[in-house]
Formats: sequence, structure tokens, C-alpha cells
Amino acid sequence: MVELVIVGSVALDTVRTPFGRVESALGGAATYAGFAASFFSSPGLVAVVGRDFPGEHLTLLRKQGIDVSGVNVEGSTFRWEGFYEYDMNEAKTVTTELGSFASFSPVIPADYRRAKYVFLANIDPELQLKVFGQVDAPKLVAMDTMNFWIRSKRAALLEVIGKVDLLLLNDSEARQLFDTPSLVKAAGCALALGPKHVIIKKGEHGALMFSEGSHFSAPGYPLELIKDPTGCGDSFAGALMGYIAETADCSERNLRKAVVYGSVVASFNAEDFSLERLKRLSREEITKRYNEFLQMRSF
Amino acid sequence: MVELVIVGSVALDTVRTPFGRVESALGGAATYAGFAASFFSSPGLVAVVGRDFPGEHLTLLRKQGIDVSGVNVEGSTFRWEGFYEYDMNEAKTVTTELGSFASFSPVIPADYRRAKYVFLANIDPELQLKVFGQVDAPKLVAMDTMNFWIRSKRAALLEVIGKVDLLLLNDSEARQLFDTPSLVKAAGCALALGPKHVIIKKGEHGALMFSEGSHFSAPGYPLELIKDPTGCGDSFAGALMGYIAETADCSERNLRKAVVYGSVVASFNAEDFSLERLKRLSREEITKRYNEFLQMRSF
Repeated sequence: MVELVIVGSVALDTVRTPFGRVESALGGAATYAGFAASFFSSPGLVAVVGRDFPGEHLTLLRKQGIDVSGVNVEGSTFRWEGFYEYDMNEAKTVTTELGSFASFSPVIPADYRRAKYVFLANIDPELQLKVFGQVDAPKLVAMDTMNFWIRSKRAALLEVIGKVDLLLLNDSEARQLFDTPSLVKAAGCALALGPKHVIIKKGEHGALMFSEGSHFSAPGYPLELIKDPTGCGDSFAGALMGYIAETADCSERNLRKAVVYGSVVASFNAEDFSLERLKRLSREEITKRYNEFLQMRSF
Repeated sequence: MVELVIVGSVALDTVRTPFGRVESALGGAATYAGFAASFFSSPGLVAVVGRDFPGEHLTLLRKQGIDVSGVNVEGSTFRWEGFYEYDMNEAKTVTTELGSFASFSPVIPADYRRAKYVFLANIDPELQLKVFGQVDAPKLVAMDTMNFWIRSKRAALLEVIGKVDLLLLNDSEARQLFDTPSLVKAAGCALALGPKHVIIKKGEHGALMFSEGSHFSAPGYPLELIKDPTGCGDSFAGALMGYIAETADCSERNLRKAVVYGSVVASFNAEDFSLERLKRLSREEITKRYNEFLQMRSF
């Protein structure tokens, strides 16, 4: 049974970093989030791919326990090409070919509708809005977004934020959306719109979670080698949501643990290109690094 | 009795940020470090100021319990003018007038020589080297530096690093000094040169401490308003060294606490211009925020 619905993109990425290059490799926000969530619970994806999408990728996702019955096949697959400079903090886009994603409209399969947890990965906020009428009574709905929608679809974006329980965005997006250099102020503005929790992702610097009357600061994991940061934000969100679904506990206390699990899985994801590191990741490795996080922050 | 010797600059700063401006205000690395240390122990400054330096500033430092007998008066005071843009992460220098600091050579007063703790704030590494012959048997010597010396005095800088117990530098300096994007690798290179601990300061993102076989990640304090970040790195180092001197405990365990006290005092410093916030800071406020740090990182 699908416990966690993830709506977003499944893509083929061509990525170059100072440590190598992959061409037309498996990518997309929903892919990373679903794979990361699969270590904890049973996710179901809602996405679209083209007829050019290699069948082996769907087989891989299924083998991982991810329900892909919500992934439609039509036209051509969303393709992104980008690269990272030496400092690895920001992806530079070379080309984006939307393909069938240009006319994507999420349809939640009947099997998914009773899932208690929903993650709206980064897509057009107007599409995110279409999901709400299609799920029965979720306990927690989370969303991610990106700077492109902040500029081009601000009103729709604010409407979605008003409907979710948990907003995820990165530090520069938080500053841009609420027009302030202060992450504390930005988080306050976001909470005022409705969400119970706002998580600000800071890449290698970890993440901050703001809730009514409390804040939590999760460290990043100091990696010796960051090969490819693509999908780290999505892996973070996926693991976080997967852990919440597994524990069925939406308390602030448990969300703190979920944030750390998110950081743990994202840190593994950065160690190799595409889904390569997550494909060979075990729950034991996740637990071991979770304990390292505990160690490295105790004082 | 002076427990902690601080060698560095005492200056007059003209600073502009999006939140205001101060002209010829009290500043300098040794000033910030000494003031921050004074909440924990008895620092003595080794510096030079000009005959134009307002006597009220020396009175303020003395009232705070800071020994200024090592501050010589000659020529004109070191003056720095700079500003911060909206994101507040990097100071832009407008002018630097070295004044009598151009011919500064540290002379440690007889009264200071038996101090067990020494902090070499950011000055020319050739001057930092001159301090070693002038202190009896310190338990812990720490140093800070800046990008200017990494470029212009690399050999001398590496020599000082080889002599200290604790190296402090910020993330971009660590990457620059060891020519790697990885802070973990940079820290490994630094430890190989001799120091027992390397602390990498990351501004609002907190700090990382690397020691043989362990790392510690301290969060930054999420401030609603950062008025002026000038002196935050120096306040961090000063509070850290002051706490080590107060507790006379150089264990890795205790250094973790010292790093958090450093973050606490630095976060207060950013709340106002020059030394204004530290001047009205109490030990009770420090303890309260230290406990908030404990709260905001527990999971």
C-alpha cells in the first residue's frame, strides 16, 4: 500500500561536475525523493515520462519498492543538462527540454488516494494545487519549490503554501520569496501563511526548521568528496517524508529526527552521480551516519 | 593576573551596512577578541594605537577587566573603512590606513609572559612568529589569519600553523590555503601541519571543529536582525579562548563547549555596530543563549 504520494518530475539528466560527467542519467525531483523515501516507507510516484525513457529505470524503481503505477508514459522525457563549478553550490543550466512534462497534469491513482503523507516536489504551483482535491485525508502535506516559480507564479505559489503543513525551500529562495536577508524573518512570514513548519535547506551547511515557538538547527555532514550535488534537496525531502510516514508521528520532536535522516540520505546522495550512491545504500549505513550526526553535534 | 594574551589590532572603524553607519568607532581584532574573552577570564592585549586614539576607549577596556598595559601609543591609529551589502557575508574594504600598525612588532609585557593561553589574532604571520620566544610555557596557543596573508606570506603562515595548537580560519580561507573545495580535506591538510584542532568558521552557518579522529559541528544562531557582522570572527575566537582559560581544560570535549560559547558571543556581537552590543552584554544572557543552542540542536 502506498503510504507516501510524491508528485514531481522523473527526468534524464546530463550533468558535469569537476569530478566527472554523466549523460542522460536517471534524475528528476520525484525520482530522488522516491528513492530516498523508499528506505523508510512505501512511496508512490505521480509523474510522466516519455516513450524514450529506458525501461530499466522503472524496473529499478519497482525493485526498490516504489509504486510507479502513477507514472504515465507519453511523448518524450523531460531532459535537463547542467553543470557545477568548483564550489558546487549552484547548478548552472545549459538546456531544459520539457517534453511531455510541458502538458503534465497530476492524476492521483485510486490506489494512492488514502495515503496519509503527500510530498509535492518542485513543479508549477498551479499543478501542485490540483493535487489537493485528489487525496482523501492526508495527515501531512509537504511542498518544495524553486526560484523560477517565485518569480513567475508568485500568487499560485503563496496559495499552495497556505494549504500545506510543511514548506521546504532553500535559503536563497526563502530570502527571495519574502524579500528579506533574514532567514528568521522569512520563516516567520512563511509560518504566518499557514504551514506548521518551515524547513530552510542550506546545502552543505545543513538545514533549519522553524515551528511555532521553536527552531531546530541540523548540521550538514562534512563530506570529503562531493561528486555531484544533483538531487540532494530532493533526497533530503524524500528521506524526511519517508521517515515521518514510517513513524506516523508528526510531532515537532519527531520532525527533528526526520530532518536529520533527510540530511543523512542527502549526504550519501552527493557522493556519486545520479542515483548511483542511493542504489548501493543500506539502512545500516543510514543508521550509522545518523549516529555520527548525534556524535558530531553533542557538547 | 593576565590569563590570556591576545596579540592583534586595535582600530578605529568606519562601517556601513544596510542598517546604518558608524564613523571612527572602536574596532580591531584584538579589541573584539579581548572584549569577548573578558566575560570568561582576564585577557591582556598586545597592540599599538595612535595618539589620536580616544582615551575613553582604553578606559572602557580597563573597566571590562582587560589589561591594556601591552597596548603602546605612538603615531596614528590603524583605521579601516568598509561596508556590507545586503547579504552581509563579506566586508568590502574602502580604505585601510595602517598608521603606527605599519611598524608594529609585538612586545609581550613581563606581566603577561606566564599566561597559559595565547591568541594570535589576524596579523602578519611574521609578527605572529615573534610571539613564541616571548611566552614562558603556554598550554594552548591559537591563531587566526586572513586571505591577504595566504596570498602574500604563505611560507611564514605555514610556519606559524606548524607551531600552534589550534588554527582558526573561515571556510573560504581554508579552501584557498589548501587549494581544495572540500573543507574536510582542507582540515586534514591543516592537522597534518601540526595543530591538534582546526576550527573552520562559517559565519551565520556556525563552525566546524576537526580534531584527530573526530569532528564537531556547531550551529549558527538564527538572528532576526544582523546589524553589523564586523568583529564576529574575532568575538568568536575571543569567547572561545576566554572559556578555555576560565575552565583550564583543553580536552576536545571542553573545546566543543568553547566553540558554542564562541558562537553565542559572536551572535550577540552582530546585533549592533562596533562594540555596542558586547558593552551591554551580561554573563546571564550568554548562559541563556547557550541553553537555547542546546535546545535548538537536540534531536
